[in-house]
Amino acid sequence: MTDFSYRNALIVGAGTGISASLARRLAALDVKIGLAARNVGKLDALAAETRATTFAVDASEASAVAELFDEVDKRLGEPDLVIYNASARAHGPIANLDPAAVQKAIAITAFGGFLVTQQAAKRMVPRGRGAILLTGATASVKGFALSSAFAMGKFALRGLAQSAARELGSKGIHVAHLVIDGGVRSARHSDPADRPDSTLDPDAIAETYIDVLRQHRSAWSLEVEVRPWVEDF
Amino acid sequence: MTDFSYRNALIVGAGTGISASLARRLAALDVKIGLAARNVGKLDALAAETRATTFAVDASEASAVAELFDEVDKRLGEPDLVIYNASARAHGPIANLDPAAVQKAIAITAFGGFLVTQQAAKRMVPRGRGAILLTGATASVKGFALSSAFAMGKFALRGLAQSAARELGSKGIHVAHLVIDGGVRSARHSDPADRPDSTLDPDAIAETYIDVLRQHRSAWSLEVEVRPWVEDF
Amino acid sequence: MTDFSYRNALIVGAGTGISASLARRLAALDVKIGLAARNVGKLDALAAETRATTFAVDASEASAVAELFDEVDKRLGEPDLVIYNASARAHGPIANLDPAAVQKAIAITAFGGFLVTQQAAKRMVPRGRGAILLTGATASVKGFALSSAFAMGKFALRGLAQSAARELGSKGIHVAHLVIDGGVRSARHSDPADRPDSTLDPDAIAETYIDVLRQHRSAWSLEVEVRPWVEDF
Amino acid sequence: MTDFSYRNALIVGAGTGISASLARRLAALDVKIGLAARNVGKLDALAAETRATTFAVDASEASAVAELFDEVDKRLGEPDLVIYNASARAHGPIANLDPAAVQKAIAITAFGGFLVTQQAAKRMVPRGRGAILLTGATASVKGFALSSAFAMGKFALRGLAQSAARELGSKGIHVAHLVIDGGVRSARHSDPADRPDSTLDPDAIAETYIDVLRQHRSAWSLEVEVRPWVEDF
Repeated sequence: MTDFSYRNALIVGAGTGISASLARRLAALDVKIGLAARNVGKLDALAAETRATTFAVDASEASAVAELFDEVDKRLGEPDLVIYNASARAHGPIANLDPAAVQKAIAITAFGGFLVTQQAAKRMVPRGRGAILLTGATASVKGFALSSAFAMGKFALRGLAQSAARELGSKGIHVAHLVIDGGVRSARHSDPADRPDSTLDPDAIAETYIDVLRQHRSAWSLEVEVRPWVEDF
Repeated sequence: MTDFSYRNALIVGAGTGISASLARRLAALDVKIGLAARNVGKLDALAAETRATTFAVDASEASAVAELFDEVDKRLGEPDLVIYNASARAHGPIANLDPAAVQKAIAITAFGGFLVTQQAAKRMVPRGRGAILLTGATASVKGFALSSAFAMGKFALRGLAQSAARELGSKGIHVAHLVIDGGVRSARHSDPADRPDSTLDPDAIAETYIDVLRQHRSAWSLEVEVRPWVEDF
Repeated sequence: MTDFSYRNALIVGAGTGISASLARRLAALDVKIGLAARNVGKLDALAAETRATTFAVDASEASAVAELFDEVDKRLGEPDLVIYNASARAHGPIANLDPAAVQKAIAITAFGGFLVTQQAAKRMVPRGRGAILLTGATASVKGFALSSAFAMGKFALRGLAQSAARELGSKGIHVAHLVIDGGVRSARHSDPADRPDSTLDPDAIAETYIDVLRQHRSAWSLEVEVRPWVEDF
Repeated sequence: MTDFSYRNALIVGAGTGISASLARRLAALDVKIGLAARNVGKLDALAAETRATTFAVDASEASAVAELFDEVDKRLGEPDLVIYNASARAHGPIANLDPAAVQKAIAITAFGGFLVTQQAAKRMVPRGRGAILLTGATASVKGFALSSAFAMGKFALRGLAQSAARELGSKGIHVAHLVIDGGVRSARHSDPADRPDSTLDPDAIAETYIDVLRQHRSAWSLEVEVRPWVEDF
């Protein structure tokens, strides 16, 4: 196995699920970690545990994302690993959705991913190395009824991932899109007793992120899907 | 062949290419036509030729789209056929793109498609019939380098199409996504002499839109791709 | 609409469903029709109705397919339209399937499609025109549990369609792959009273085949999917 | 990282590329290895190096594959990890291909994969655990011109992978399909001096296979693609 080559990681849209597991795994690899979210108060315990620095940001605002990266450069060092986990949805029949909520879902799920990818690219292209991981969902590849806003955001993020991989791969930057196909285990969403591991363990998901980050540049993955063994799909 | 069942068509993002061909074909079928675009001045000749009514609209503004449909209801009658052809791009390396241009590309290419689909659904669901056609591109299914903004917009529109088809199909509304894979013939973009029909003839594209609209509900297409016979893909 | 340009059609794997509807539509367009199947006895009534010539063939045997086309050349004239509808399945858990049945399913569903495409290409390439339509299913794009043999055959046929389209398109031959997503209406498989048009009407499917065959070479479809308006997918 | 849980691995279609790298990695994990190929003479050095047992087999013959697994059961122990790497192609215009060569390409690339998956399933289902890895290629997802036979075989194998994953996943068997998108480095196929790592290093590919095999059942991948950082795709 190749050594883990990334030293400064920024996770945008950090919360208590996949991001927390990732932060713990990265901390164990002695990576310096920045955790960015709209509301950083909820991140205090995780930040303490992973010796991470927290940053408040609205990822859908271009100037806020630019400032975020400037702050990260100063306080953490230029990130060579950037992970985008933010998303928002608006559920319901198309006729009933609030256009502002749909706009916001797209802005946070996809446009924020662009803004973060852009700031990452600005730093990584001159150095000729880095990694950008974008977190997708079932909705990235299938647009479900009553979920049009989320489908739009997640499809768009997948388009970004492909475009970014094609542009940035040969510049030494590993872009990957992780399709999380299933419910992620959490305090609110746990396994039924008779269906062990029927939800995605965030620690298991994080392991696959780390695997992707360890890949040698001669054999990079762009898209990796993960789902529970018992998932219908 | 089944008769053509739609009577009032609204084309949003109308221009001189596919939309003009569609308007001519629909006019020949005695469909009443509305042509909506940001700049309607360019549509005068087409409107005269197809006895169409023109509407000025910024399709990425929720209130403007709501007003557009109210106007269409009054001046044309409730549309039972709505076609979304608007799109915008921003070309270049991810690091160099103007975030505002990317935001606008997504807003016009995808969010506008949602707003128009929403207004259409509000009218069609109560009647239990109608058709919504969304125009895609090669970028709908493949994110190219240097074209991230367009990929995001077109991927998102495809996600909307899938979600809308799954929600609205059983309500009698035919949602279809047309993937235009290649360059559309135009004054600026014509066939090389030694490569006849190497561009997409907009009249030929329009024929396939009409075919889709004639489909019986027992065998509807959601996605149809068209490309020139000599296209590399 | 462009005129219908094909004059001699051969349908391989002809039966009572889509093929019969296609034969009737083609006959109405004054196309000379050949119907090929393993058991041609079942085709007598259809052949009489459509003034078609019948040919007995095992489509999975190379020599038999070569002989079929030689016969068709003589009795019908070189076909400029060839449609492959044959398929076979083997249902059940992977561990329980009879390997011979799986082999046969692949042979009839996919290898026969190759053999027919090959004979068609031999005739069409020199003339610089023709059309080859291959009939797919839901299983062409999604491998379901307990249906591995059919998935293998239908996936393979889709691979053939893509490869053939890329090779033969620029030689003037329109290759298309029709994905029939849902149950086709038949004597055994009709609509529940409360779910009108919930099965695919074979006449409606045939209409889309004809639409594809009428497409101008500047805007050809390779893949078109059809499904009932109420289908879950 | 979870421990590596598989103890007896069988690689069918073993050669000098990916299979050899896999065998070395598995040997380092103290896995007992069986190497099966049509011609086992070429495997002597690898077998010695990895303490592997070799088995001669024509993977496209049902009885031969059944015998292979019986032999493996006796000499190695029932395999809990089975990898299918065999493939064959036939290159050229569709009209020129030898049907027997196409049939053989499908038989080795896809039907052999079924036979091996079937024997693996027979052993793994009763135990409620195991892994089956099927090796794909660019041709698994895109049918290229002049490569119809390979496309048919690789598409079919992908259909098998999906079907097998949907059937066997909830029985504790991890089925994965690895899409190798690019040329694999070899004595004949090495990197140009100015394009380092432009071919896929088989050791790097093997690393990703091992990663997939280490995945926890709550987050399994079905499909993982790998390609060189500089690959056009």
